[in-house]
Formats: sequence, structure tokens, C-alpha cells
Amino acid sequence: MTEPDLLIAAKELDAADPLAGFRDRFLPADGVSSYLDGNSLGRPLRATEEHLQGFVREQWGGRLIRGWDEQWLELPQQIGDELGATALGAAAGQCIVADSTTVLLYKLGRAAVAARPGRTEIVLDADNFPTDRYVMEGIARECGLTLRWVRADYDGGVSAEAVAACVGPQTALAVFSHVAYRSGFLADAEAITSVVHAAGGLVLWDLCHSAGAVPAQLDAWNVDYAVGCSYKYLNGGPGAPAWAYVASRHQADFQQPIQGWLGSADPFGMAQGYQPAAGIRRLVSGTPPVLGMLPMRDMIALIAEAGIGAVRAKSVALTEYALTAVDALLAPHGVVVASPRDAAQRGSHITIDHPAFKAVTAALWEQGIIPDYRNPSGIRLGLSPLSTSFEETFTGISAVLAELRR
Amino acid sequence: MTEPDLLIAAKELDAADPLAGFRDRFLPADGVSSYLDGNSLGRPLRATEEHLQGFVREQWGGRLIRGWDEQWLELPQQIGDELGATALGAAAGQCIVADSTTVLLYKLGRAAVAARPGRTEIVLDADNFPTDRYVMEGIARECGLTLRWVRADYDGGVSAEAVAACVGPQTALAVFSHVAYRSGFLADAEAITSVVHAAGGLVLWDLCHSAGAVPAQLDAWNVDYAVGCSYKYLNGGPGAPAWAYVASRHQADFQQPIQGWLGSADPFGMAQGYQPAAGIRRLVSGTPPVLGMLPMRDMIALIAEAGIGAVRAKSVALTEYALTAVDALLAPHGVVVASPRDAAQRGSHITIDHPAFKAVTAALWEQGIIPDYRNPSGIRLGLSPLSTSFEETFTGISAVLAELRR
Repeated sequence: MTEPDLLIAAKELDAADPLAGFRDRFLPADGVSSYLDGNSLGRPLRATEEHLQGFVREQWGGRLIRGWDEQWLELPQQIGDELGATALGAAAGQCIVADSTTVLLYKLGRAAVAARPGRTEIVLDADNFPTDRYVMEGIARECGLTLRWVRADYDGGVSAEAVAACVGPQTALAVFSHVAYRSGFLADAEAITSVVHAAGGLVLWDLCHSAGAVPAQLDAWNVDYAVGCSYKYLNGGPGAPAWAYVASRHQADFQQPIQGWLGSADPFGMAQGYQPAAGIRRLVSGTPPVLGMLPMRDMIALIAEAGIGAVRAKSVALTEYALTAVDALLAPHGVVVASPRDAAQRGSHITIDHPAFKAVTAALWEQGIIPDYRNPSGIRLGLSPLSTSFEETFTGISAVLAELRR
Repeated sequence: MTEPDLLIAAKELDAADPLAGFRDRFLPADGVSSYLDGNSLGRPLRATEEHLQGFVREQWGGRLIRGWDEQWLELPQQIGDELGATALGAAAGQCIVADSTTVLLYKLGRAAVAARPGRTEIVLDADNFPTDRYVMEGIARECGLTLRWVRADYDGGVSAEAVAACVGPQTALAVFSHVAYRSGFLADAEAITSVVHAAGGLVLWDLCHSAGAVPAQLDAWNVDYAVGCSYKYLNGGPGAPAWAYVASRHQADFQQPIQGWLGSADPFGMAQGYQPAAGIRRLVSGTPPVLGMLPMRDMIALIAEAGIGAVRAKSVALTEYALTAVDALLAPHGVVVASPRDAAQRGSHITIDHPAFKAVTAALWEQGIIPDYRNPSGIRLGLSPLSTSFEETFTGISAVLAELRR
């Protein structure tokens, strides 16, 4: 397809898009004609602006300390349940909002290792996001375990076969990404979980790059633990709190390394000696980050309104369109697609490589065309289904072409 | 003094208060005639409402992912430095905003224990806030240490003499509150730090109940580590991120248990193997909570404008006035003062006890008179110097009297 044909196709796809109207629910970004980095930082909703203002004036400023008793204390579990039902396939009482992805990875990793005493290895993929690798490296050191690496066998992705070759009676825990942060490879979480369980190990899934765009079925997949951030496809804002999932069957024995009062059984008893709260609540360490957890709630509601199935369908259509445009416009200039071509194996971003992309990205950012860049030479096109249009995707890829032609 | 005389005195004190004008900088609280819980949740500033709205629309919504490079990545250290200079007596490069008090207590406690290998005890006070006790209990268990308790010897406070009797060659770390959460006792942090150092141990101070109201001199006192929340006298909002101080001399060896990518030396290198960042930055684990850390910045600026010395002077005047009113109005009804009478040993709240106070507090809250309640029978009168007036203090104590007379 030619460039004009691709633009026509984009306009047709937008016209036929049943979710197109959701784009107006986001705040406008002055001077930005193409935002293709929703996989790093989702855009704020108009509702979020209103809700934050109302919260500061009426809730924090008006209810003051009474707000804790009236509703704030329960927010971590309430929002966790809303997220679980909307996007994670998790029944109530298993998800909680807290801390950061990194801190939650630490808590879950430590608890998993404690639940598998005598086992000596944590299995990781070399393409796991750095924080996942660094946290597990620290846990392995402090608990006397060894890291074992699964070699990625497809575009940076991890397969059940490769995992099967690594796990055994020595495996305490395996940690993988549902969608790989670089390639966008979508792992078969159910099959891999099953393989690790067959070896007697536990699995911790990182859903940072899938939650809100790619549906998960944590309960049905029999997942043990999962974690994710809220600032990508959940539009929680820069550095918003993260969420964790702990399957009900693991909660009674969940041993929390960071024993905090608001995760204790009777916080206001102020007693000597930590006694953990029942259920998922024991994951809480410090005072819940109320202000920071409000924006994601608006996006969870928007996803629920659209339906996660429809969100995924648009995500697939957006990445398909982007691949078509890259093949037609950029491949002739030496750009290589580093993401899976099979939509069933792909998340909501695609990565393309070219030696000039560091400079290209810098030039594009100044023009208000905003993809993501990852060393050494990758542009990630993050397509957030409810805020990204096909034409916007065209505009971004067309702008890459213009830079490559300079 | 009689009740009418106390009201006249309050009005006179307000009229003469050089900081009285600062009260208008806070958002109004409809229906609240006396807010005496700034020691649990400080009120929002008008500036905060504006800044949050501007942030969502212009920064997050307008700069989008570019905001990280342009300014957000440095915020944890920038706000930390501002806080250190304004209220903590800490030179630049030693304070950072992150996580929650609980998570930071864990990081600092673990690092301290690692820095004193072979030592077997963590010294605590039984009146430490529950989270401090629970976190250290967890660290002791995982590191094979023992907790040793200093018996409080004055209104719940901890003295250098009592600490001296507990520390020795076995002491790895001592953890104390600068201002005790119940009694409001203000510890002699300099003397206690010196006593612990003489035994070769390290000290971690919890400044949750002092930061922003009682000046600290962390550098001059030779403190090793300190931590505090930002939602009390720093008005950061419910569950806002916390801050930590690590003295420069301990930073190069600081071993972080929760190894995250944004606290690594080269986050965007995404390399294999965690290498900690230089300096205080290595305390960062996950992505900094940008939205959540904005409100405290407004309050730090307000404290800087007023001057922490003037803030402390008003705090002392407010607690003196409150004690006078309690003695005159409530003591005849059996109310007992549980806080130090010497202003030099007192923070910015006072605690009063009476068997009826649980019911009294519930009744007061419904009338828009808001003190704090702590089991088993304590009302805490938290007097936040820049937002609390003398008349407001009178109103609250007078309302307690009315309830006791019912």
C-alpha cells in the first residue's frame, strides 16, 4: 500500500471503530499529533482531572481524617477487585493496589520462596524487565538461591517448551512477563504456569505490559501470583501505585517481609507483636496511597464500559494496521520488525529497529510525534486501544518515514 | 481561667500571631469548626488544588512521557533536598521521597543491619509506632537478630540514660521516634544518637510526628538514618509518599534490599545485573510516585516562607495554650494530661485521657469538631502551626467540656 492509501485505510478503520468515541474521554494534549507511548505512560482521562479536584477539596479537605473511616481504608481492595473483575479474570479478594511494581515483586517473590523451602532456584527470562531481574537477583542473594535463565527462543518471547527444560525439583519460583517489554511477545501464561506447577514450583507473572489492553484469566490459568503497574494501559499517572494478585489458596500462608501496621489484623489496637490481616489485606505495608490510586479507577471504569474483549479486538486491529504500514513504508528503508506477526502472540505494542532510531525519536518528540525509544535501536509503537486512533498511528509511522528520508 | 477568659485569650493570641495569615492558604473545610488532627492528616493547601489540576492537564496530559526526562525523574531528590533544607537540617543529597514510611523503615533497617555484621540486637522502645515495631520484628526474624526493648521512663518518652542501659557491643541498630505518637514526648535525638554511637551501633530516627512542626538537625546531631511520612505536618495528603535520610557517610555502602531499576546506576541501559546508583538515589526501588509527591512540595514551600523556627514557636504557644485550657476546663472533670509539661520535651500534639473519650470523640466528629482518638482512652489534640488557630483550639477543648457535661 502507498502512503495515501494507508491514510485512507486509517480513516476508514476509525470510521468503523466502535470504540472511536472513547477518545474524547481523554484530556487533549496540545501540540501532540500522535501519541504512541501509551505502553509507557497512558494519557489522563477528563474524569480524572475532575475527580482529583473534587477529592482534594471535598474528600481530603472536607472530610479530613474522617475520610479514612468512611472509605479510604478499603480503597486498595475495592480498586483491586474492580481491576480483577474488569481486566484480570480474578474473582474478588485476590487483588490489591499498593506500593510500586518493584516493591510488590519483592513481597511476592519473598513470599513464594518462603512457600517452597528447600528449593534452590528462581527461574527467569533474560528478557524480563530489568526491575524484575534486579529484584529477584536481590532475593536470591539474601535467601541463598540461584537464578536460572530461560533462553528466549522467539523474538524475545518465552515458550512453555523452553520453560519445561529449565524447571525441576529445584525450582522454587518462576518469574515471567505476560507481554515482553521490548518485543511485545505475548506469552502463553496458562501453558507455562502448568509446566512450572508440574515441577512443583510457583509462578509470578508480570502483567505491566498487558493489564488493561490484553485480557488475562488469572484464576482460570491457575496463576499463583501476579503484579503490574497502573501507569501504562491503566492510565494511573506517572509513578501511580501498582497492583498485586495472590490466589486465594496462597493467602493464608502468605508471609509478608515488610510487616506494616495497616496490613496487620487490628491496626488500631496498636498492640505489641505483628499479626497479619486475613486475606489479601496482609499485603499492605504502609498507609495506602489514596491520591495516587484514584486515576486508575477512572480507567478501570472506562475499560469496563468498553469491555476488555472489545479493547483487545481494537488492540489487535491497531497493531495489525501498524505492521502493514511499517512493512509498506519503513521496511524499504531498512526498518526491521522485532515483534511477533501472529496477533495471538502479540501484546499492544510493536517494536521496530533501525540504527537511526535514537536520533529519529529525538527529532519526532520535538514535533509532537511521540513513540517510545529503547536502546540500542528500537522504537516501540505503543497503541493504547481506548485513546489511540488508526490515523494517529499512520501519522506517527509516516513521520518516521519522513525522518528516515532526511 | 474561666471559659470566657480562655476565649478572650485565644482571640488575643490569634491577633498577635505573626503566622495567622497563613491559615488562609489552606482550603476551607465546610462544616468543620475545629480541626485538631493535623498530626494525623494535614489539610490541603489552596496551591495544591491548583498545582494538581495544572499537573494533570499540562504536565501529565501535555508533556506525556517527555515529562520524565524533563523533570519527573529528579523529583524524589529535589523535593528531598527542599525538605532537608527547610525542616530537617540536612545538607543536599541525603534526603529522598519514595514509597511509604513502612517500606523505607524496612530498607533503612535492613541496610543498617547489613552495615553492622556480627551484632545481634535491634533496640526499640515499646512506645514506638506499631509499624516501626512490626517492621523491625520482621527484619530481626529474617536476619536472625533479637529485639531489645527500652522501657519508657517519662510519659511514654525515651531518655538517653535509658538507652545507655540497653546498648552495647551487641547493638546493631536502635530505632526511636523523635516525637512519640501517643504522648507527644520529644526525644533528645542528639544525646541518644551519641549514646548509641558510643556503643558502636547505628540509629534510625522516625520523624513522622515531628517533621514540619519541630525542627530537626539531622546533620548536626550526627544521625545515621531517618524516615518520616508526609501526610501529617507536611500536608502531602492521605497516604502520600514518605521520605528518608541517609547520612552521606553511609551512602556508598548502603545495601538496598529491594533492588529496582530506577535506583540502578544506568536504568535505561536495561543491562543484566543490578548496579546501584551513586548516592541517595540508590534508595529508589520503583517508579517515583510523581502525582503523590506534589502536594508536600507546596507545604515545604510554605514552611520555608514562614521559617521553621517561627513554626516551632507557634507550635509551642499552641500546645501551651491547650494545656492551660485543659487544666482549667477539663481537669475538674477527671481529664488527665498524658503529655510533657515542659515545652522543650514536647512535640506539636498533646494527649489527654478520660474513660469517656471514645464516645466523646465520636460525638465531636459529627459536630465538625475533629480531634484524634487513640485507644484505650486518649484524645490527641494535634496542632498544626500554619493551619490551626488559638480560637480553633479553644473551640475544640470547649466542645470536649460540653460533651463531658452531658
